[in-house]
Amino acid sequence: MKSLKVIKVGGNVIDNEQNLSNFIDNFVQVKGPKILVHGGGKKASAMSRQMGVAPKMLQGRRVTDQETLEIVTMVYAGLINKNLVARLQSKQCNALGLTGADGNTIQAVKRPVKAVDYGFVGDLDHQSVNSQLLDTLLNDNICPVICAITHDKKGQLLNTNADTIATNLAIAMQNLYETSLIFCFEKSGVLRDPEDEKSYFPNISWQQYQQYKSEQIIKDGMIPKLDNAFEAIGAGVASIVIKHARNLNNDIGTTLYK
Amino acid sequence: MKSLKVIKVGGNVIDNEQNLSNFIDNFVQVKGPKILVHGGGKKASAMSRQMGVAPKMLQGRRVTDQETLEIVTMVYAGLINKNLVARLQSKQCNALGLTGADGNTIQAVKRPVKAVDYGFVGDLDHQSVNSQLLDTLLNDNICPVICAITHDKKGQLLNTNADTIATNLAIAMQNLYETSLIFCFEKSGVLRDPEDEKSYFPNISWQQYQQYKSEQIIKDGMIPKLDNAFEAIGAGVASIVIKHARNLNNDIGTTLYK
Repeated sequence: MKSLKVIKVGGNVIDNEQNLSNFIDNFVQVKGPKILVHGGGKKASAMSRQMGVAPKMLQGRRVTDQETLEIVTMVYAGLINKNLVARLQSKQCNALGLTGADGNTIQAVKRPVKAVDYGFVGDLDHQSVNSQLLDTLLNDNICPVICAITHDKKGQLLNTNADTIATNLAIAMQNLYETSLIFCFEKSGVLRDPEDEKSYFPNISWQQYQQYKSEQIIKDGMIPKLDNAFEAIGAGVASIVIKHARNLNNDIGTTLYK
Repeated sequence: MKSLKVIKVGGNVIDNEQNLSNFIDNFVQVKGPKILVHGGGKKASAMSRQMGVAPKMLQGRRVTDQETLEIVTMVYAGLINKNLVARLQSKQCNALGLTGADGNTIQAVKRPVKAVDYGFVGDLDHQSVNSQLLDTLLNDNICPVICAITHDKKGQLLNTNADTIATNLAIAMQNLYETSLIFCFEKSGVLRDPEDEKSYFPNISWQQYQQYKSEQIIKDGMIPKLDNAFEAIGAGVASIVIKHARNLNNDIGTTLYK
């Protein structure tokens, strides 16, 4: 079976020119079929402010009204995605940018309104992914670069969590590839001590994860990220690593396992 | 030989919700392989003003400094392109949005600085077009939706005239398809009297065009559009029509010939 790497790069890497430049150098060296997934929330918040639209957050998630949806569509699908593609193209990586709407790559569902109305936010699972189109592109030696915008196939774009996209892509592509999922961010891995970059766990099992959560060694923003990741492991993704973007091609980072 | 329609839709159609909605209804009814090319200059100018960046125009062309390039990338490749794609997808047209950077679809050259420095503006010819990628997508029943952003393959995005893109796409795809080029805008065709929508020329030959130009019956913004179009005819594109977006699927409009 062919192998595929799904690589998610976080907003804190993208927002810093030096980090981004290093990441791109590392990314183009990754051998074989690969898909890049990116966010860009910090840049979207900055753009909101420049346009006089206050970013609205609830429980760490963006509330996406019509105005905010337009801004994230411009920033994720336009500014960030196309600059990533152009820079990868300059280094002989045949990148092609996509939202979930393009070629119906990811068809999500607008999040139902319960206690909170998140607005134009998309939920998805691995069945939302058009793995056939991605396979066609990968076979043509193209590297899909996917941003955190999906659609509902009824004409509505939806703001969607990039970690969730990466996770469900990795699960969906398993039918065709042995898939690994790599989350690149601005820390060396899952840290025991948030102040000490050397304190990363080399490995975390599902059982250890439950324990670390209950002891509050792992907390806050790391929990949705790890919940997502362990979901993919439960669904059979071959390997999942959380690491600093600069360590993409070496062993430093946290590997998750069952 | 298979046939292909390259359809350019102008900014004045896109900016008006009723016109856009009608255009989309008409576009999805077009049978067979098709490519949509769009601009969006009016919306980009509005966004510039909202962000406090004054649009700079010289001889009817946008001067594209770094700030303006970011805005047109957001508006063309993000906001307009992805909304078009989502709306086409909702009507069972398998649209996929592209800039020239994506899959290296169009590799342009930054316009050399002569009397005027247009900034990050791309020039291209038909050899700039990656017809193989477009053919792959078309064969997969995908409708490419191409916005007016290209790249130089050295990491730089470039703002590029959408009429020029449509024309050179039509020329480039001729190797593989019998290609027609259709310019949809907000008038019935090339008008003898700009105030009278019924005064459109049903046909204009190259020789007539020279005459009408010298008599100033055809002038202003119509000249670069027609120069572009006749260039494609000279290069052997099967048919070129300039018409109102609402008339996409009927005979009303101006057909150009040798």
